[in-house]
Amino acid sequence: MNKLLIVGTVAFDAIETPFGKTDKILGGAGTFIGLSASHFKLQSAIVSVVGDDFPQEYLDLLTSRNIDISGLEVVKGGKTFFWSGRYHNDMNSRDTLATELNVLADFNPIVPENFKDADVVMLGNLHPIVQTGVLNQMTQKPKLVVLDTMNFWMDCALPELLDVIKRVDVITINDEEARQLSGEYSLVKAAKKIHTMGPKYVVIKKGEHGALIFHDHEIFFAPALPLADVFDPTGAGDTFAGGFAGFITQQGDISFDTMKTAIIQGSNLASFCVEKFGTERMLSLTKHEVNERLKQFKALTQFEIELS
Amino acid sequence: MNKLLIVGTVAFDAIETPFGKTDKILGGAGTFIGLSASHFKLQSAIVSVVGDDFPQEYLDLLTSRNIDISGLEVVKGGKTFFWSGRYHNDMNSRDTLATELNVLADFNPIVPENFKDADVVMLGNLHPIVQTGVLNQMTQKPKLVVLDTMNFWMDCALPELLDVIKRVDVITINDEEARQLSGEYSLVKAAKKIHTMGPKYVVIKKGEHGALIFHDHEIFFAPALPLADVFDPTGAGDTFAGGFAGFITQQGDISFDTMKTAIIQGSNLASFCVEKFGTERMLSLTKHEVNERLKQFKALTQFEIELS
Repeated sequence: MNKLLIVGTVAFDAIETPFGKTDKILGGAGTFIGLSASHFKLQSAIVSVVGDDFPQEYLDLLTSRNIDISGLEVVKGGKTFFWSGRYHNDMNSRDTLATELNVLADFNPIVPENFKDADVVMLGNLHPIVQTGVLNQMTQKPKLVVLDTMNFWMDCALPELLDVIKRVDVITINDEEARQLSGEYSLVKAAKKIHTMGPKYVVIKKGEHGALIFHDHEIFFAPALPLADVFDPTGAGDTFAGGFAGFITQQGDISFDTMKTAIIQGSNLASFCVEKFGTERMLSLTKHEVNERLKQFKALTQFEIELS
Repeated sequence: MNKLLIVGTVAFDAIETPFGKTDKILGGAGTFIGLSASHFKLQSAIVSVVGDDFPQEYLDLLTSRNIDISGLEVVKGGKTFFWSGRYHNDMNSRDTLATELNVLADFNPIVPENFKDADVVMLGNLHPIVQTGVLNQMTQKPKLVVLDTMNFWMDCALPELLDVIKRVDVITINDEEARQLSGEYSLVKAAKKIHTMGPKYVVIKKGEHGALIFHDHEIFFAPALPLADVFDPTGAGDTFAGGFAGFITQQGDISFDTMKTAIIQGSNLASFCVEKFGTERMLSLTKHEVNERLKQFKALTQFEIELS
């Protein structure tokens, strides 16, 4: 089995949506990426940090999904990263109510020995210096490095971000971030400009409007599945990235055809994530449900045209 | 050849975009629908009204596309409907600078005798009473009636709009209008509610984010082609509707598979419309260009997945 190395936060989230609110629950980009990728045949490890307030139950949960947590540092006397937010009625925008970095402030990632030759590296949204720190520890050039980031780092750490972007094969960002990073409004032009910054593949996430992948002159589009109810969007982007990186790791192949399917697999898994609070839906998800919804994705997009 | 009856404005537009501005040029929903539908093998007629300030050259242009204009009334001493608008930098929003109804204010549509048995009726965006007036003149129940409308009529003529909606098979509206008409935020729920108002098929246009068609429990999605440059969005929605109705008329079949292809055909034609001001691009468009871009639509959306 191929190896996927995941870097990303493992955290507590407290979420308010029009449908209800939660106390501190399991969250974090690394968590969502790991749970999503665990739907594929692969070996995975998370590099992250938590405090000793982080429940053993959550650690066991990650282990039970065959995620190696030897690179998940537990800081004695430290407190786990905490994020709290409130979604608006449209579920597309949110207010951050609290961000407590806690142990994340001094995070120094250590890649486990047996993952320094990982086939795929998924750099979840974190300070670009942490992302670079992980790449520097790899003893063998990975087949594929995927980077997720956000506007916060463009505002606060652009030079460091550009440094790590130079070194990755795939970048996943949302449409507004692609525009900010490139200075181009058209996503086609934005992707072209981002290509020149390093990544051969540019994935632009448009939330409920789907996702695009650009590579040279090729473009592929995966819609988001139209859903009657979106309960909690938290983690959807990370679940998408985890499905994308997880599928590619399983296949061990980085052709554009594999990338296309990976985008669909990511969108498919993300469509479940939003159905319940936090990680709840991802934890109850069965292979049968995943496959049935993949059929819906096919029905949603596949057509026949005879050219006359 | 099957018959398509089109009702919609034939008008003058004056357009400002970040890329330039035009004087009064040929526009109107009926015009864009007619030009788009003319890319298919069918007989079409436009029911509309203009003033005697409308140039013979424009009338000849419609006739040269095999569009029957015997139902296009020319009012002696009247002035043609005029719309003027300015698009913002994002090209998604616009300000209306002028709307002069002129001869449209007293428009009483007359369906030509030989189109009273049309196979497909495309009711372009107009006062719902005009749309109803056209349906009342049909001597034979059409295979399919498609209605396009907008928020303006929901605000100003809702009872009349609901009356005509009851009588149509397909409604095409944009996402915000679907939400307004249904009172539901989720497009899945909005489509369900609109089904209960009459239309068996609900087409929701999302502009640069593509279009969805809902029918019972089936959904199909056509992306918009990602474009480097959008020059002028005027008429894109009508061109989409014209391609949709035109393809169905040509095929003479209203299966859901035909509707899927029709949505793609409409999206494909609309992707050309926005490349130049007004009708300019639609007038220079060749069959070869249409076919080449259909191939791009296939490449953009088609994928293979093995379910494990």
